[in-house]
Amino acid sequence: MENILSYIESNHERYLAELKELIAIQSVSSQTERKPEMRRAVKWLANHITNIGLQNAQILETEGHPVVYADWLGAAGKPTILIYGHYDVQPEDPVDLWTTPPFEATVRGENLYARGTADDKGQLFIHLKAIEAFLKNGGMLPVNVKIIFEGEEEIGSDNFAGFLLKYKKLLKADVVLISDSDIFAKGVPSVTYALRGITYMEVEVTGTNTDLHSGTFGGSFHNPIQALTEMIASLHDKNGKITVKGMYDDVRPLTKAERTAFKKLPWNDRSYAKMYGVKYLYGEKGYTTLERLWARPTLECNGIWGGYTGEGAKTVIPSKAYAKISMRIVPDQSSEKIAKLFEKHFKKIAPKTVTVKVRNLHGGEPAITPVDSPGVMTAVAAMEKGFGKKPLYQRDGASIPIVVDFKNILGIDSVLLGFGVPDENAHAPNEFIILENFFKGIKTTAHYYNEFPGFWKSGKKK
Amino acid sequence: MENILSYIESNHERYLAELKELIAIQSVSSQTERKPEMRRAVKWLANHITNIGLQNAQILETEGHPVVYADWLGAAGKPTILIYGHYDVQPEDPVDLWTTPPFEATVRGENLYARGTADDKGQLFIHLKAIEAFLKNGGMLPVNVKIIFEGEEEIGSDNFAGFLLKYKKLLKADVVLISDSDIFAKGVPSVTYALRGITYMEVEVTGTNTDLHSGTFGGSFHNPIQALTEMIASLHDKNGKITVKGMYDDVRPLTKAERTAFKKLPWNDRSYAKMYGVKYLYGEKGYTTLERLWARPTLECNGIWGGYTGEGAKTVIPSKAYAKISMRIVPDQSSEKIAKLFEKHFKKIAPKTVTVKVRNLHGGEPAITPVDSPGVMTAVAAMEKGFGKKPLYQRDGASIPIVVDFKNILGIDSVLLGFGVPDENAHAPNEFIILENFFKGIKTTAHYYNEFPGFWKSGKKK
Repeated sequence: MENILSYIESNHERYLAELKELIAIQSVSSQTERKPEMRRAVKWLANHITNIGLQNAQILETEGHPVVYADWLGAAGKPTILIYGHYDVQPEDPVDLWTTPPFEATVRGENLYARGTADDKGQLFIHLKAIEAFLKNGGMLPVNVKIIFEGEEEIGSDNFAGFLLKYKKLLKADVVLISDSDIFAKGVPSVTYALRGITYMEVEVTGTNTDLHSGTFGGSFHNPIQALTEMIASLHDKNGKITVKGMYDDVRPLTKAERTAFKKLPWNDRSYAKMYGVKYLYGEKGYTTLERLWARPTLECNGIWGGYTGEGAKTVIPSKAYAKISMRIVPDQSSEKIAKLFEKHFKKIAPKTVTVKVRNLHGGEPAITPVDSPGVMTAVAAMEKGFGKKPLYQRDGASIPIVVDFKNILGIDSVLLGFGVPDENAHAPNEFIILENFFKGIKTTAHYYNEFPGFWKSGKKK
Repeated sequence: MENILSYIESNHERYLAELKELIAIQSVSSQTERKPEMRRAVKWLANHITNIGLQNAQILETEGHPVVYADWLGAAGKPTILIYGHYDVQPEDPVDLWTTPPFEATVRGENLYARGTADDKGQLFIHLKAIEAFLKNGGMLPVNVKIIFEGEEEIGSDNFAGFLLKYKKLLKADVVLISDSDIFAKGVPSVTYALRGITYMEVEVTGTNTDLHSGTFGGSFHNPIQALTEMIASLHDKNGKITVKGMYDDVRPLTKAERTAFKKLPWNDRSYAKMYGVKYLYGEKGYTTLERLWARPTLECNGIWGGYTGEGAKTVIPSKAYAKISMRIVPDQSSEKIAKLFEKHFKKIAPKTVTVKVRNLHGGEPAITPVDSPGVMTAVAAMEKGFGKKPLYQRDGASIPIVVDFKNILGIDSVLLGFGVPDENAHAPNEFIILENFFKGIKTTAHYYNEFPGFWKSGKKK
């Protein structure tokens, strides 16, 4: 490994110069007029991939923007890592707020600024440079790798599940490494091993068969807005627990080790509250904020509407009121089951004075890759070597549909090995990647390739 | 009175022919292109008023459409009745749904159909024909009368309070007769002696200082929609009583006589619920539906909004949520005081996790003219003679701002002596007035003029 690491060390300048070339291509997937730029990015990547020594570089077409594929499968008897990244970026608007031009990667202080530095060109480039270090120093990788870089992550990855289904055989692997996430904070390397899922519902409450004048009729009918507020208010008890019957039945409890691990993360409720402008946090009693965010189901009203919502006053008792209510779910809950429990509960709590309709708008499953799995154990070991510091464990409260797709379609667990930071301005002006994270990320990734076969082998023995 | 009544009886055909002329004028106050029609209506009325023998006919200009004024003040030592009506009408849209043309008054069955038959040309015409009957049969009225017909009732009477203020002296009177309301139902003559007022508030609940992703942040902050629903839900207790502290302090209790009187009105909760498509009514326990609608304060959420309200799903925890909340208030509540009580209460129940703003959007006072006042007693006596049937007492749950203006600006109580019916399609296609009510209305009004001086005199003696 020594020559690999010193090769990485001595090529910093060239890496940055190459990354700047990729960043200069304005591959905004949401804008039709930038379709030629998307093609330019694909070609640049296919060419670069071949130059560093990867094989079988291919542009795999989808209904939308293509996926760039390549592999190196020369490590006989060794496992295979499937590496995921995306070459499309968010639009640069509002341009005025950028300190330096959005597509000119610029070093300022400790960071490299430009659209795509963190999300996700900089991060996928970390893998390419780690791979290059091996292939340019002996022509061999310690593990088999397959890379897929998609072009529709910023517009919902609509064609990605279809792509996985179509290329199921080509994409066979032992672990997925997703290089599109963050460490917990600057200077706090961490490995993300679980995500929440989601169940998203819409409810409609109907009172009278027509809107009514609130003077003439006020006092005789149950206003559906009032009924809806009473129902929503009842969905949490005084301890912040969700009251939907059966909600917690399938929740995998946090282990003592997990709770201990989360406590090691630098976190301060007061400064978190202050940052978002509130005096007090809110949530389920008996759990810390991080535990609630990452490992407990939550129920949020994402939208509510009914009656008159314009300027001034209108004296109406509306016929209908609506709300969008979503639940974040955790292992081992099932989105479909939670939707059914919610619907049953919501209909049950509806007062006789109104009628309700409940629709399941969409769902996504939670995901967890056990901390003692080869994928996560390798990440911890590699990060410790790359950052010179033991990484901490974390989960993520959001959902990443592709992680569920990898599991459901290919049957492979994912490890989120990312090197961004939470305040990196992804999707906003002045996006950046911390240069130290970029270079330590390359070393960490090299260590990951090197260590994975060992953990994988001992994992198989168990 | 005999010759007065027989004159009315023998002129039915001519009355209808004249009313058809007035109705044919398309005096839609909300439409600029119909301003010439508004002027035509004013001129037609001024001319007609003079022809029937009223004096001092004047077109009193306002910032908007003018008011038609006339008087007859020859009854020395007798009280004065101020008669209110309006010559403007609602637009006729949707025209397709009219069986006969909207501005061609047409008899069909027992009714006269056209825009303005009930609201309010037909009703103001009732007064003109009663006055005519006296003035054409002896040249004298038994009481002094002043008439004001405004042209902006259908667009909010914005200039009416200013008009009253400006002509305060000219409009001095002992009672206001408002001829723009309904009897309780066909065949059920009634006198309306009280109205509710209103206090209309808007509330804003703020959680975090920015919208947040419900995956990343769900479980740490009190969603302002949830907080708002909890607060609104708490505004009624399980008996349907409003929980705002002090809400009932100034409520004038219904007298035993009033409760008995309301019970005489034909009313069926089941058919009322069925008509509006619900299985059960809702309201304050301990009161009948009519009592709740007319004589009890109510609180309604007229609008609610926050977060994502478009199609599909958006995983947002909004920063803010809003609601419009109005309270109908009853004698002797004050709109301003209730607004203050509401604001205080709403701020008090706000959880510490959010901040709230409360705005008073507008208010109007309740009104009551005692049932033993000369104005109401005359109405009861006149109606009994005009309809050959003892009228019943009723209140109205809505607010009529001009009633409060008459009281506040001129210091005069109003009596609602109307001859429409609740299902007359005012503001809708196929508006009608029941012909029998129209003719009985003229007789009732003639009796009112004749009887008021007596009740007024004995009222003064008390």
